[in-house]
Amino acid sequence: MKRYELLAEEIAASIRSGMLDVGDRLPSVRQISTSRGVSVSTVFEAYYLLEARGLIRARERSGYYVTAGNSSLPPEPVIHNCCTGSLPVRINDLVFSILESVKSRDVVPLASAFPSPLLYPLPRLARSLARGAETMDPWSTVDDITPGSPTLRRQIATRYMADGALVQPDDVVITNGALEALNLCLQAVTQPGDAVIVESPTFYGALQALENLGLRAIEVPSCPRGGIDLDRLAQALAADRPAACWIMTNFQNPLGSLMPDEKKRALVDLLAAQGVPLIEDDVYGELYFGARRPLPAKAFDQEGLVLHCSSFSKCLAPGYRLGWALPGRFREQVARLKLTRTLAVAAPVQEGLSDYLARGGYDRHLRQLRHTLALQLAAMSCAVQRHFPSGTKASRPEGGYFLWVECPAGVDTLVLQREACLRNISVAPGPMFSARGEFRNCIRLNFGHHWDAKVEGAIATLGALAAAQLGSPRAAPAIEEPGLSALGV
Amino acid sequence: MKRYELLAEEIAASIRSGMLDVGDRLPSVRQISTSRGVSVSTVFEAYYLLEARGLIRARERSGYYVTAGNSSLPPEPVIHNCCTGSLPVRINDLVFSILESVKSRDVVPLASAFPSPLLYPLPRLARSLARGAETMDPWSTVDDITPGSPTLRRQIATRYMADGALVQPDDVVITNGALEALNLCLQAVTQPGDAVIVESPTFYGALQALENLGLRAIEVPSCPRGGIDLDRLAQALAADRPAACWIMTNFQNPLGSLMPDEKKRALVDLLAAQGVPLIEDDVYGELYFGARRPLPAKAFDQEGLVLHCSSFSKCLAPGYRLGWALPGRFREQVARLKLTRTLAVAAPVQEGLSDYLARGGYDRHLRQLRHTLALQLAAMSCAVQRHFPSGTKASRPEGGYFLWVECPAGVDTLVLQREACLRNISVAPGPMFSARGEFRNCIRLNFGHHWDAKVEGAIATLGALAAAQLGSPRAAPAIEEPGLSALGV
Repeated sequence: MKRYELLAEEIAASIRSGMLDVGDRLPSVRQISTSRGVSVSTVFEAYYLLEARGLIRARERSGYYVTAGNSSLPPEPVIHNCCTGSLPVRINDLVFSILESVKSRDVVPLASAFPSPLLYPLPRLARSLARGAETMDPWSTVDDITPGSPTLRRQIATRYMADGALVQPDDVVITNGALEALNLCLQAVTQPGDAVIVESPTFYGALQALENLGLRAIEVPSCPRGGIDLDRLAQALAADRPAACWIMTNFQNPLGSLMPDEKKRALVDLLAAQGVPLIEDDVYGELYFGARRPLPAKAFDQEGLVLHCSSFSKCLAPGYRLGWALPGRFREQVARLKLTRTLAVAAPVQEGLSDYLARGGYDRHLRQLRHTLALQLAAMSCAVQRHFPSGTKASRPEGGYFLWVECPAGVDTLVLQREACLRNISVAPGPMFSARGEFRNCIRLNFGHHWDAKVEGAIATLGALAAAQLGSPRAAPAIEEPGLSALGV
Repeated sequence: MKRYELLAEEIAASIRSGMLDVGDRLPSVRQISTSRGVSVSTVFEAYYLLEARGLIRARERSGYYVTAGNSSLPPEPVIHNCCTGSLPVRINDLVFSILESVKSRDVVPLASAFPSPLLYPLPRLARSLARGAETMDPWSTVDDITPGSPTLRRQIATRYMADGALVQPDDVVITNGALEALNLCLQAVTQPGDAVIVESPTFYGALQALENLGLRAIEVPSCPRGGIDLDRLAQALAADRPAACWIMTNFQNPLGSLMPDEKKRALVDLLAAQGVPLIEDDVYGELYFGARRPLPAKAFDQEGLVLHCSSFSKCLAPGYRLGWALPGRFREQVARLKLTRTLAVAAPVQEGLSDYLARGGYDRHLRQLRHTLALQLAAMSCAVQRHFPSGTKASRPEGGYFLWVECPAGVDTLVLQREACLRNISVAPGPMFSARGEFRNCIRLNFGHHWDAKVEGAIATLGALAAAQLGSPRAAPAIEEPGLSALGV
């Protein structure tokens, strides 16, 4: 850890412990510099890091203040459910009906799976795409179609190596987004009827992939702070003979949980001892608010049993649909499935991304993106604490753009979702993330969109709707019928 | 039919019947114009059409001559195999080992699945892509991701309507190439273990799709001239309970066969009577050498049971991976599968194709492409007749870019393929196109690449290798070892 990172960690710990609370003014940069014997710029870097994590904020001419201490945040939830064998998955109807409700642009998109596309360097990407298409070798559309552009695969491998995971260009199979990579990896290691371990709660896309391939789900509880429960996982491995395990190691969707790197090593070892492949979904790994990118589980893979999947969709190029798999010892099977299902990723898109990466600026964009997301998280967490009924809990994600909110027992978020929909607010109810329909009092909120009065108002409306379900004296907020007054009614 | 089309048909019939033979000079344009009472431009258009079909060629200052009459072409093959129930598919290993042999650019790509990328307007497409990416609404990457860009879906539907098939924009689901469309449609109407009717021979991609989904194949003979045998199809329908039927109606891969439009109607009616969905692969439909685009079977679909699939990959934009499905009554299932497997097609690619189509020029490009392919077909057919052992037969495709060659019994094309590979020539052996490994004496040749002495030499080498297998006095051509002389060895 660098000096400024150590300093930032220390201050963050003081905030977490309650020693520093919301509104407290931090010592001035000069004070700290003198007392700790570090340079002014080291202190600035530490403060900048804490600001990016949403913990402190600068006020003009008066220094830095704590913005998101313990008291302004909802308490953290704990996942209590238990795993009891495998079951078939029937999630598609629920998921599609809810996704349909997100489609209108008039809706406050708290259920959206994507951050705001305005957070991405789309104009620069467009120029790179234009160059890529213009200079593309026509024959690249015919040969080298699977596993994808050698240049791009080299660029991707280089990023992993810089982050501490030993990846070779030949390990990479380019895919149509991470979603295709995950589906291909799952298909490569399973047969219909097999059981697959997933987290509970888990990304609904994992459940849909299982459903489409006729697989059964074994749900193992995951914790908003550290990810999947390894003891329960070991029990599930002993009780069933799962064909694979599908886990999101960094900033899990929907919890936002981050598995500590050492726990990842233990996970990989545990699965390797049983010879069970790990499908690792790491699409949010680059969106960390901390000091450095958390490692993927792939970094601890000795046996080639980790099938790691990621993409540029969440961190650089939404809508470009460029992802990849690092399928380890299953590379050949995954490449073959890719070839027979969709053949290749659009050649000019591969060339365009490659051009963008070659020109630099990606890391600068990422720093800006992480900073924005961290600030929006702080705003949303505080708003939940202000507007939701007491007893509401919320996760404290250290990256990504999802906040997991656990309302008091008695709130039915499937009802809440329908009521919110009438008020042009979309929200993702807990049962979307469970094969058993659990987490009925939970919701996932997307903080990847610009924070403004409209979003804050939507959080207030959701809080009031939840309170109304609990019989709270606050009346349920009325459904606005825009246009009636304009019509003179 | 227009007047010039009638005239062209009449002359083509005279060539087919042998009344006009190779080298015969056609009456001058003025002569025909006078004798038939049609305008000079009508005659020119008819001759132009015949030229595009490879039947005649102009010689400077001396008029038009027949180039590809009966005597210069190999006789046509007939498919004799019979269908006897369903069987599991195990084709992947063979197909992948052969595809691997095509990858080097030094190889004469007679086994390639693609025409030369130089036949396509890649620079214009690059400019359209640049404009599409630049003007793209950022929010289009988030909403409307499935079923795809409304503008592009309207443009695609409009082309079908112009060709005589009633298609609405809402019927269209945009996919990553036709291959994804076909895989999704197949998955939408089958369960693992189901039997599916395919043609024999058929596109190996269909067999791979069956294999990947755990489906069984029922092979029904297809004829190089008119496509699948409807009587045999009716028998297969009665004997088994197939879940679907997968057919390439226009310029089938590998035969090049064209199903007459009325036969398509009969096919659709036959399947509809049994309630069996038809998956129609129509990726070559635009590559016709005749007067007009042959209809898709979809045009006769009253029940919504035809799941039609096509793309721009073969006719406009190789490497852009933009295809679509018209899944009829299965639209919802196909759109859902699309969403859960690959989510969407790259937004800028959709915008780019849309920009290209809006600016016009697509039909001009297609005319040029058809013309080139027809000329290359004539050259390759004549070369096969010259260089292959007597008794060799070849199809007479009226579109596409595949020639099906049946060598005399005794030639083993799996051996031929390996021998050709050593000589830097790729060739697709018949067993790639059959779940039973049939067509052992057949090969598929790609005439989509620029015709030159190297390609003609490759055809001569293949012919000599085939002759050597039959114990012909001609010796097998030596393997050149390039570089040895250069090294002074």
